[in-house]
Amino acid sequence: MTEQKLSETSPVGLPGSAGPVAPGPGAVAALRPLGPDQVRLDPGGLLGRWQRRNATDTLPHCVDNLHRAGNIGNLRAAAGELDTAFTGMWFADSDVYKTLEAAAWELGTSPGDATLRSFVEDTVALLARAQQPDGYLNSYFTVVAPDERWRKPDWSHELYCAGHLFQAAVAAARTGASPGLVTVARRFADLLVERFGPGGVEEVCGHPEVETALAELYRLTGHRPYLDLARRFLDLRGRGLLGPGRFGPAYYQDHVPVREAREVAGHAVRQLYLLAGMVDVGVETGDHTLLDAAERLWEDAVNRRTYVTGAHGSRHRDEAYGDPYELPPDRAYAETCAAIASFQLNWRLLLATGRARYADEMERVLYNAVAPAVSSDGRHFFYSNPLQLRTGHSSSGEEEAARRLSWYSCACCPPNIARLMASLHSYLATAHDDGLQIHLYASGSVDAVVAGAAAHMDVRTEYPWRGRIELTVSAETAVPWTLALRVPAWCDAYTVRIDGGPVMAPARDGYIRLTRVWAPGTTVVLDLDMPVRHVTAHPRVDAVRGCVALARGPLVYCLEQADLPPGTVLEDVRLDLAAPAVTAASATSGGNTPDIPVVINVGGQVAHTGDSLYATGRRRERPGTPLTLTAVPYFLWGNRNEGPMRVWIPVATP
Amino acid sequence: MTEQKLSETSPVGLPGSAGPVAPGPGAVAALRPLGPDQVRLDPGGLLGRWQRRNATDTLPHCVDNLHRAGNIGNLRAAAGELDTAFTGMWFADSDVYKTLEAAAWELGTSPGDATLRSFVEDTVALLARAQQPDGYLNSYFTVVAPDERWRKPDWSHELYCAGHLFQAAVAAARTGASPGLVTVARRFADLLVERFGPGGVEEVCGHPEVETALAELYRLTGHRPYLDLARRFLDLRGRGLLGPGRFGPAYYQDHVPVREAREVAGHAVRQLYLLAGMVDVGVETGDHTLLDAAERLWEDAVNRRTYVTGAHGSRHRDEAYGDPYELPPDRAYAETCAAIASFQLNWRLLLATGRARYADEMERVLYNAVAPAVSSDGRHFFYSNPLQLRTGHSSSGEEEAARRLSWYSCACCPPNIARLMASLHSYLATAHDDGLQIHLYASGSVDAVVAGAAAHMDVRTEYPWRGRIELTVSAETAVPWTLALRVPAWCDAYTVRIDGGPVMAPARDGYIRLTRVWAPGTTVVLDLDMPVRHVTAHPRVDAVRGCVALARGPLVYCLEQADLPPGTVLEDVRLDLAAPAVTAASATSGGNTPDIPVVINVGGQVAHTGDSLYATGRRRERPGTPLTLTAVPYFLWGNRNEGPMRVWIPVATP
Repeated sequence: MTEQKLSETSPVGLPGSAGPVAPGPGAVAALRPLGPDQVRLDPGGLLGRWQRRNATDTLPHCVDNLHRAGNIGNLRAAAGELDTAFTGMWFADSDVYKTLEAAAWELGTSPGDATLRSFVEDTVALLARAQQPDGYLNSYFTVVAPDERWRKPDWSHELYCAGHLFQAAVAAARTGASPGLVTVARRFADLLVERFGPGGVEEVCGHPEVETALAELYRLTGHRPYLDLARRFLDLRGRGLLGPGRFGPAYYQDHVPVREAREVAGHAVRQLYLLAGMVDVGVETGDHTLLDAAERLWEDAVNRRTYVTGAHGSRHRDEAYGDPYELPPDRAYAETCAAIASFQLNWRLLLATGRARYADEMERVLYNAVAPAVSSDGRHFFYSNPLQLRTGHSSSGEEEAARRLSWYSCACCPPNIARLMASLHSYLATAHDDGLQIHLYASGSVDAVVAGAAAHMDVRTEYPWRGRIELTVSAETAVPWTLALRVPAWCDAYTVRIDGGPVMAPARDGYIRLTRVWAPGTTVVLDLDMPVRHVTAHPRVDAVRGCVALARGPLVYCLEQADLPPGTVLEDVRLDLAAPAVTAASATSGGNTPDIPVVINVGGQVAHTGDSLYATGRRRERPGTPLTLTAVPYFLWGNRNEGPMRVWIPVATP
Repeated sequence: MTEQKLSETSPVGLPGSAGPVAPGPGAVAALRPLGPDQVRLDPGGLLGRWQRRNATDTLPHCVDNLHRAGNIGNLRAAAGELDTAFTGMWFADSDVYKTLEAAAWELGTSPGDATLRSFVEDTVALLARAQQPDGYLNSYFTVVAPDERWRKPDWSHELYCAGHLFQAAVAAARTGASPGLVTVARRFADLLVERFGPGGVEEVCGHPEVETALAELYRLTGHRPYLDLARRFLDLRGRGLLGPGRFGPAYYQDHVPVREAREVAGHAVRQLYLLAGMVDVGVETGDHTLLDAAERLWEDAVNRRTYVTGAHGSRHRDEAYGDPYELPPDRAYAETCAAIASFQLNWRLLLATGRARYADEMERVLYNAVAPAVSSDGRHFFYSNPLQLRTGHSSSGEEEAARRLSWYSCACCPPNIARLMASLHSYLATAHDDGLQIHLYASGSVDAVVAGAAAHMDVRTEYPWRGRIELTVSAETAVPWTLALRVPAWCDAYTVRIDGGPVMAPARDGYIRLTRVWAPGTTVVLDLDMPVRHVTAHPRVDAVRGCVALARGPLVYCLEQADLPPGTVLEDVRLDLAAPAVTAASATSGGNTPDIPVVINVGGQVAHTGDSLYATGRRRERPGTPLTLTAVPYFLWGNRNEGPMRVWIPVATP
């Protein structure tokens, strides 16, 4: 064990320009991420506004609530500085870590934020004091149940919490926000290696997360035992080590070895974090079986068990994937954390393979599964993101809330949003030796070294409201290189102009590839056609038979009660497929209504539905009262007032 | 408190001929139940076979499992006779009481069953020994957590368990199976009156049940404080005494006073038992506000939140009612106990009001929500009764099992089935001064005193397989009286013959009323037309849009994988509405296949559905491969082999 202990004294990885997920030099990776200091989001664009709101509202709100809800107090109690009772969930430390991670990414962008910096410094110092002499760090198992330490792996979340600590430390080191946190993290990580490493205890955590975190800690430090431990946790999974538990071993993906799994299963967040770990370990070790399994499971998820919004998780009972094609919109669990996990997983798969389908999925999930979780004020959140809220809905818990709540008793989602939004700019573009790849479109700029020389790009766009993207590219080299621009899967037609002249630019594998010498100031205009689309689901998705969803560009739309004439029951509204769909700027604004740049107006009717719940013989709906329906972006739902909403709209029978 | 204590020495109510629910002489009741010794089920008919199977298999299986699972051991530990650890749920005593109640009803029919009699005698003696000196009786709170007694009303189920004890004691007294159990019950009931009665603790139980049980104990004993306590529990409910709990106060119907509730809510079994208590107390006290509220809530349940099978409960998470029209077939919770509770509630409402709709509901729920829970062998049970099982279903717990299990860790359902089936004959018919009413049709016989004289009736029928019901009526009086025969709501056409001659017999309020002097041997033949019906749901039930269910007579049918050609995916099957539906005897028998007297053959097709989960533009299904579909009674599903099943069948687009 002395070998691993040495790591404590080995130099901490250099804080370099790296964002979340930084494959090592030897990793199997098709694309290389850019550093967070290489991409900037324009605060005028939608993504830039989200990131700004995250900095001004969501993140301070999280910090406040860590104090208010007792998470910080728990750590002070663990440090012996407070004598209060433990409060909140037993894995409450993880919310501190996610907030720290968010703060670290944000300090990378806004190093002058003194309040945030002192939060980080104070919290890192507190963590160092709360850490036990052997490196163990967990306030619940220190304060409440020291005798239970390491004894309830199916339930304890000890390694899950450790994973979030490691991720926070990696972010703090990469951005230079706090080198000290890595010391804390490594002391704990070394303890894990000692206990769970080769020859140690054969155990896995009920909630995967530590695998991807250990891989990232390895990437930061170059300390191989971390990666080996991540791989060992993957290898040990699926052997029933966790026992059946309340929901069966599939709940925590312990029912089958990870390389043999054919279907995603169980708790969606756990499944997705586990897949992220599989990709990280796979690319770092060159173990293709892990990457292959991850891609296969991705296909099962995306082809049979994903909502049209990109959300994962059909069941409330165990926060789990359902059976194939079991995708009820009203009971969609669609946990915010699962959407974030999907975004993170797809980024890893994109880096590993360069396949556009992963970037498509990032886009879908970002706009339609992550964004809806945050209110316009940045201080209220959905835990669960249903695709339909019925007239007469009554909630029986926070996960069934009809409106975004300020905080949650299990507050995993808000700080998870914060860490994603604070690092959002890191996910837009990648580079490799002979080019630059743009995956997500947003106003901002990119600086990179391409073909051995500096390149700069400005992006101007009103995306996702308009499909026109203007890029100005300047490279300090006469060597040609390739600019790859993603053509989203939803886009059927587009045009490209370079310096004003149209060019033929066929998309191959989801990308337009423009190869040339990029004289300073070269302009590229990509214009993606963005008609309103009627989206239909596979007929095996019984829950939305006879319905369509409205979409435009990357955005899924929905109907809200707020846009219906008074007295109209949303459940009785039908969409007229033959009627033209027209886009318009929001005409329904007023009061605290958020600005909606593009709404969709489409013809519909209000059906006369009768009274009886069941009847003999086919019911033919009488032609309903015509009306014009206004659909709004799903990510904005529930910001005006609480009320019924639906994404899938029944089609009027002709 | 001395007044109530006197009850201990007052004579126990006479064991008379009374079944479950025996309104007192002063009760507001439109109809009077017959005693269990007045109705006999022919063991050749379906209901008679069910009752017989219950006696030979289900009930002995329950007794065995009470020993095996530790329920009896828990009581022995409470009696100080065993030193083993408590096993099972903290409310495990209730399963003993329900089995005792079942045994009592069964002994009323089969008094010579020595094994059953000794089970009752042994168990009653054990309960007397386990009872605490003050009358308290609960093995969990005696053995495991004596300090918690009465301290966790939201969770403890102490009064729930007491209620089942009282119901068992009432059954044992009414059938003469064990007078001693009433002594045990009254000692506990008197303790409840002392603690919770007027001037006592203001508290209610998280799981309603004791209210209806106390009313029945009052009916047996005439001891008014029991009824008053039941009423007090109802009056105290809805004041938030239980606190919010995990799922909010509506989970246990503590969110609104019972008389003010406008919608059923929360845990379905709790809601239905509560409604039963409201009716019992309402009719005994003449408090119409309780009965009115119960009827109003019944209407909400049946018109907006009941499955086509009569099942209640749309959600797994909190075993609860969903929002209005939220009735997913695949995630139907449809707990067996809720179906039984609905049957019991409807019987109470039928007695109180005489309205046919309650008898209709009893029939629907008995054949399609209670019966499916029991396997053909009577020894395996569903806890949850989904209306669809998907291809690729994987269960994450007992409540999601794809097949009937032998026993459950929470084994509330099997003994609940046993007590209903053992008393099933009590629910077929009623009487009042000027007539006899037949509500459920089954081969058997009825003896009653009508118009002051003995009347006897034999019933011969193959119901529910055939609609022909032959009754032979003999009355020992020349005074005319009225025989009322229910015309089920599903029936559009019928004929009546008396002594071979057709009579005009218009149904009024759901009943044909035949008034005459019933000379011995008068024959009445009621022939109910029983075509195959296509049942459709209200368009607000999004989950089954574009689907029909097949039904015939009182039976709902379903498709099973077992009847499809190999390789056919059930989710791709479509029903051809234009094709004729033909009934036939089961042609698919073989091996352990149960005999199915009537299956439905109907034209259908296998759709070509394509691959993509979501696509732009409307998908038009290409005309599928034609095939003949065979539908089997839903109550028999899953008896041949485990596999996909569905009640709601998508209709082929013409």
